[in-house]
Amino acid sequence: MASFLITGASRGLGLAFIKELACLPPSKTGKIIAGTRTDSALLNDLAKTSSGRIIPVILDVTSQDSIKKAAAEVIKFLGDDDLDVLINNAGVCHYVSDGVKTMDTLQDDFTINVMGVHWVTQAFLPLLQKGKMKKVVNITTTLGSITLARQMAVYPCPAYKISKAALNALTVQWALDYEKEGFTFVAISPGWLKTDLGGGEMADLTPEQGAKTTLDFVFNKGQEVNGKFLKVYIQGWETAGYAHVYDGGEAPW
Amino acid sequence: MASFLITGASRGLGLAFIKELACLPPSKTGKIIAGTRTDSALLNDLAKTSSGRIIPVILDVTSQDSIKKAAAEVIKFLGDDDLDVLINNAGVCHYVSDGVKTMDTLQDDFTINVMGVHWVTQAFLPLLQKGKMKKVVNITTTLGSITLARQMAVYPCPAYKISKAALNALTVQWALDYEKEGFTFVAISPGWLKTDLGGGEMADLTPEQGAKTTLDFVFNKGQEVNGKFLKVYIQGWETAGYAHVYDGGEAPW
Repeated sequence: MASFLITGASRGLGLAFIKELACLPPSKTGKIIAGTRTDSALLNDLAKTSSGRIIPVILDVTSQDSIKKAAAEVIKFLGDDDLDVLINNAGVCHYVSDGVKTMDTLQDDFTINVMGVHWVTQAFLPLLQKGKMKKVVNITTTLGSITLARQMAVYPCPAYKISKAALNALTVQWALDYEKEGFTFVAISPGWLKTDLGGGEMADLTPEQGAKTTLDFVFNKGQEVNGKFLKVYIQGWETAGYAHVYDGGEAPW
Repeated sequence: MASFLITGASRGLGLAFIKELACLPPSKTGKIIAGTRTDSALLNDLAKTSSGRIIPVILDVTSQDSIKKAAAEVIKFLGDDDLDVLINNAGVCHYVSDGVKTMDTLQDDFTINVMGVHWVTQAFLPLLQKGKMKKVVNITTTLGSITLARQMAVYPCPAYKISKAALNALTVQWALDYEKEGFTFVAISPGWLKTDLGGGEMADLTPEQGAKTTLDFVFNKGQEVNGKFLKVYIQGWETAGYAHVYDGGEAPW
């Protein structure tokens, strides 16, 4: 029975994680803590019908104060339970009008996509150290691969790409420092999703597919993926040959 | 005759670039603009004996106001001359006391090492577009290679590593956007240098070696290195087999 904390849980991929986890039997998933920047009526409603398994918590990843308050609340909610898995999912993507010279959101994207992950990980590390699974999943994207930058040039979101490259680097720093304690830190690209952040209906996969295949890694892989940059596996997409190939393998940095 | 702008020019590698460029014949280097955060007596003295070739300019890369003022001054100083080469050299490196969990300088390192480069490049792009060489060198480090993170784990500066990985990603975004205009954007690791930022006397190379070998790329390579992450070449070090190998080749992202 594993307990989870998901950030950015009120919509898109984050919400899909909450729903997917809540559908699994209580023998597999315990408490599911849903961190959201502001109070979410949708999550509150979901929580009411979850027999106490889904626990919404206000958690603004850009505020160290908010994160500290959330950590204190989570300790109360967990009681004697551990925290097993942290999924750093909250993120933002901005587009530019005329190439990288017009990029003016890089600091904001960095604060949310990188500092947010670092601060949340720092704050919840003591709880995760008491947990059995000791897994931290940082949601990234193959757009953050510097190696693939040329084939991804068509997507006009340089600040997102650069901040996710930095997130990948951050993930590896944590992975190297905590592997001796049995931790697995992994950067997973959940695919191009039909979400507000992603590509809407143009995108390849539903948020449910992204959540389900990301959780496949959480439940079925251990320290052999520590410090890696992984793509999800979607049957039929592994040999598609598009820029986005969902073959469950490693993406190049 | 190429004109240069170097940021962070009052000490270390930046100062070594200024001295090296000033030693070259006027047929090779024209005006050498030395950007510094605060007024530098040392640079002012050097400028006095340079027959007008070295031009100190106040340029704080963390301040968009300072950068704009510097750009206006540089236009005046250049007169009818072009700006050919920008070397984004200003940077900072902080160490942690107890691993990545104690890292509290990441935002500062990002502002100086990444935003500084982006803002300076934005501001000087119009001048570089009028230049003949159209070269932008971003000073990076093999510590910023995510691929090499495990073998670099002994160096306790995660914020520096992460910010330089982001700088590498930024470099590639600029490289892809401006290659059609004839630009070369390149990330060069000048080696582990005996500077305040680097390793003092423990380090491998003198700042003069770092500057000279970086300038070898500027003068001898063209668009074939656009968007690449390069190591300098130091004879005898190319087969040393240490973490830092100075073979003039590409570093992995």
